[in-house]
Amino acid sequence: MNILISHTHAQSAKRWHEEMLMLLPNASVKVWPDVEQGWADYAIGWQPPKELFISQNKLKAFFSAAAGVDHLLKNPALPKGLPIIRLEDAGMGLQMAEYCLLEVGRQYHRRDDYLAQQHAQTWGFLKSEKRSEYVVGIFGAGVLAKEIVKGLTSFGYRSQTYSRSSTQALADFLSTSRVLILCAPLTPETQDYFNAERFAMLPKGAYVINVARGGLVVDDDLLAAMDSGHLSGATLDVFREEPLPKTHRFWLHPKIRMTPHVSAVTLIGPSTKQVAMKLDRYSKGEPITGLVDRKKGY
Amino acid sequence: MNILISHTHAQSAKRWHEEMLMLLPNASVKVWPDVEQGWADYAIGWQPPKELFISQNKLKAFFSAAAGVDHLLKNPALPKGLPIIRLEDAGMGLQMAEYCLLEVGRQYHRRDDYLAQQHAQTWGFLKSEKRSEYVVGIFGAGVLAKEIVKGLTSFGYRSQTYSRSSTQALADFLSTSRVLILCAPLTPETQDYFNAERFAMLPKGAYVINVARGGLVVDDDLLAAMDSGHLSGATLDVFREEPLPKTHRFWLHPKIRMTPHVSAVTLIGPSTKQVAMKLDRYSKGEPITGLVDRKKGY
Repeated sequence: MNILISHTHAQSAKRWHEEMLMLLPNASVKVWPDVEQGWADYAIGWQPPKELFISQNKLKAFFSAAAGVDHLLKNPALPKGLPIIRLEDAGMGLQMAEYCLLEVGRQYHRRDDYLAQQHAQTWGFLKSEKRSEYVVGIFGAGVLAKEIVKGLTSFGYRSQTYSRSSTQALADFLSTSRVLILCAPLTPETQDYFNAERFAMLPKGAYVINVARGGLVVDDDLLAAMDSGHLSGATLDVFREEPLPKTHRFWLHPKIRMTPHVSAVTLIGPSTKQVAMKLDRYSKGEPITGLVDRKKGY
Repeated sequence: MNILISHTHAQSAKRWHEEMLMLLPNASVKVWPDVEQGWADYAIGWQPPKELFISQNKLKAFFSAAAGVDHLLKNPALPKGLPIIRLEDAGMGLQMAEYCLLEVGRQYHRRDDYLAQQHAQTWGFLKSEKRSEYVVGIFGAGVLAKEIVKGLTSFGYRSQTYSRSSTQALADFLSTSRVLILCAPLTPETQDYFNAERFAMLPKGAYVINVARGGLVVDDDLLAAMDSGHLSGATLDVFREEPLPKTHRFWLHPKIRMTPHVSAVTLIGPSTKQVAMKLDRYSKGEPITGLVDRKKGY
């Protein structure tokens, strides 16, 4: 079995190469672009160049080294029928759950207000909303969303999830979400989903957290909803263009907290183990999870 | 059975009165000071005045409406042999665990550094320490400390606890704690425990979180350890004097985060249920937990 690794970071490619050799001792493993045409049976990668699919014309499947495959599906040379298998959780859910809990907790417990009180040398208890009236809405219901729910629940937060298969109406979901966490794949259906109309459905003072993809949000509409006072703020880990351009209004907006796409970093250990296991099963014709439905986009 | 309620906040006294009448329908319940001398069999309270113990000279036990009984034990009129039963957890552990996780997470994930990066309009991943080398030390091993450990563990943090019964040497415990969380009762033994000598045992760059009592820390020594660069900072929820005096150096110190004793608020519902249950059992001679050992001070 011939396996080709492709990764935008040389160091990561090296680690994947070493790990796959160890985990699948009977396989041959090479790193793109050092490979002859038509050599690979399988490729594993993150943002592979289109030349890879032109050169490797005998691929039986492509294993994504990330949970989101939106970049991959936009690759103009991606063969139409090529099975794509995406990374599932692999330690990312727990990180994302902690990231979201830190932000929800900061909001719920009014930590920024306490900091302002400290600077004003003022002592006083600041009341939080009733737990029973504070619902965190998670847009998405995949493995990562489930981990976020689990983390929030373990500290007594109420939450609800929304996905394409939800029976709850979108208006009901949004109007009852004090915090909205975006944790859904970027697909033609979710692209620009959070626009002025949908932000308006959130209750006044709602807070938005985006750990999914920048493309889900219409930036100008988010800014307008904060500037009008309808939304209290947003924590953004992902952006339409990354790195975020220097001139973007997000950087210095007082209601925005930003991190540079770090809410969940790929853990090489769990990721390589998962892909090796799936590769082994797939090559034997055994069932695996994470097969991408191209129509749905995830 | 005659039960007397004493609380520094009139509103809380009212709630305790209502709840105890409902939970123990066969008891008579009154609120201090509206009570005749020698009336009460049991008293429940938070910071009772010394007059209460002089007036109520037939008490069989005192139930503390707080986990910490340091104030109570300093009451000059407290009868020597009076059994004291303290509140255990009653929903406080989970709140304290979340408070600590928010602070540990903010440190570990370098959220303040990311905020500074945002203000500088700079994009870039900031590496965290290795999880395996980042140990959170909890000084204390009671029910609240256990909840903190549970919360940290559920998000993948390593931790260790230290108490009077620990076999680990204090120097070992402190020198291996990247974050030190104080969660122990204030007793003659722990009073001023964290002084210059003990802060010096922590590794360089360590962070201190105090959710216990201000008296555990020598304020000037903490400030000196931060000013010398040995400690990276501290989050303080409790203080030797509360409210913290306006002139105290903690307020505006750049390495200090302060909250006004809010890390765990008493939840009337679980607290009254616990005390009612213990009162009922105690009055029947059945075993209960939370009986204070006056020698240990908790």
